[in-house]
Amino acid sequence: MDKLVLYNYFRSSTSFRVRIGLEIKKLNYEYQPIHLLADGGQQNQPAYRKLNPMGGVPTLVHQDKVLSQSLVILQYLDAVFPDSYKLFPEEPFARAKVLQFCEMINADMHAFANLKVLKYLEENHNYQQDQKDAWVNYWFTQGFTAIEKTLEISSKDFCFGSQLSAADLLLVPMATTAERFKMKIEHFPHVNRIYKSCLLRPEFMKAHPFRQIDTPVEMRLP
Amino acid sequence: MDKLVLYNYFRSSTSFRVRIGLEIKKLNYEYQPIHLLADGGQQNQPAYRKLNPMGGVPTLVHQDKVLSQSLVILQYLDAVFPDSYKLFPEEPFARAKVLQFCEMINADMHAFANLKVLKYLEENHNYQQDQKDAWVNYWFTQGFTAIEKTLEISSKDFCFGSQLSAADLLLVPMATTAERFKMKIEHFPHVNRIYKSCLLRPEFMKAHPFRQIDTPVEMRLP
Repeated sequence: MDKLVLYNYFRSSTSFRVRIGLEIKKLNYEYQPIHLLADGGQQNQPAYRKLNPMGGVPTLVHQDKVLSQSLVILQYLDAVFPDSYKLFPEEPFARAKVLQFCEMINADMHAFANLKVLKYLEENHNYQQDQKDAWVNYWFTQGFTAIEKTLEISSKDFCFGSQLSAADLLLVPMATTAERFKMKIEHFPHVNRIYKSCLLRPEFMKAHPFRQIDTPVEMRLP
Repeated sequence: MDKLVLYNYFRSSTSFRVRIGLEIKKLNYEYQPIHLLADGGQQNQPAYRKLNPMGGVPTLVHQDKVLSQSLVILQYLDAVFPDSYKLFPEEPFARAKVLQFCEMINADMHAFANLKVLKYLEENHNYQQDQKDAWVNYWFTQGFTAIEKTLEISSKDFCFGSQLSAADLLLVPMATTAERFKMKIEHFPHVNRIYKSCLLRPEFMKAHPFRQIDTPVEMRLP
């Protein structure tokens, strides 16, 4: 009845966000891999486009309900599984501040490291890997600088005080992506501290890109 | 007590979203212009960066509370002014579908037409206006194609049925921006229909970029 299916990709940072959320909430789900590179991108196949017109990952199917956009999925899970761990505060301003933090990543950073943007730059401006790294670093430095300033005030063990929230679920995958593009997370001490400590938590470990059923063998972590 | 101050810029599409929301909700606010081009960008001045670490617009100040990210501001206004017109449905899945639509614009389209991205492309790849138009058209065509598919199912007079929602507040400013970059909105019939009819509504007219106190005289609409 309450079956959850997550169409996602091991290395997608938006998929990683939702996987952590499902682990934190202790909700079982079926993992349906959508390979963003194989077969010209499985996200472009008509059957998947019907579920997700933008052709992105992840997509959650809950009963007969189909939902995309990772940040929306997390809010939805809070609403329909009220007995599970809450990822967003209830009080309107506290909730808004967590959402604001999430959007700094979701709206202002994430798009720049998207596979299709990097592909565009490769095809139109002959970007090689070092130029892709420089592009991502340029935008992520702006983003993480703003985030670091926020964390100076808001953070203790987690982004917002001593309570894990959706903010941590967005920060960790974004920092993971940043490292793929050779960014030095240590330059942002609060980001780095929370990133490193969250990565050691069992829910984050289980949801990590290198521990999924579609992770290529040579990348697998124990 | 319930004073609202909106730091914003006439032509910013995210500012436009919030202005429409405030009009629809019949909430008075003080308009504080932040000129994104003058003085090296007023959003970069230290006093403003304290309000908004990302240096974006808009920023809402409500009593002593400071909030950025337009989509979050709209959700916050719904929560703290419960007697005003509701921009988001209450029921979790209906709410999630409106939010999903909003994020298709906010997370997957908006960043590409951002002033700072176009400036980067100009400085690093010598983009002239026609190349900027082509860049924006490339990404917006993907976005509006997905949105059009959604609207085929969801829309009547508005994006979601016959009830105005936050989805319309995001669609109209994005279409306005698209036209600045010479995009043909008519190629997306449902987008075009809702865009054109909303623009005639008094709240959208009042909030329009060309009718603000910081709109340059030569751009002003009656």
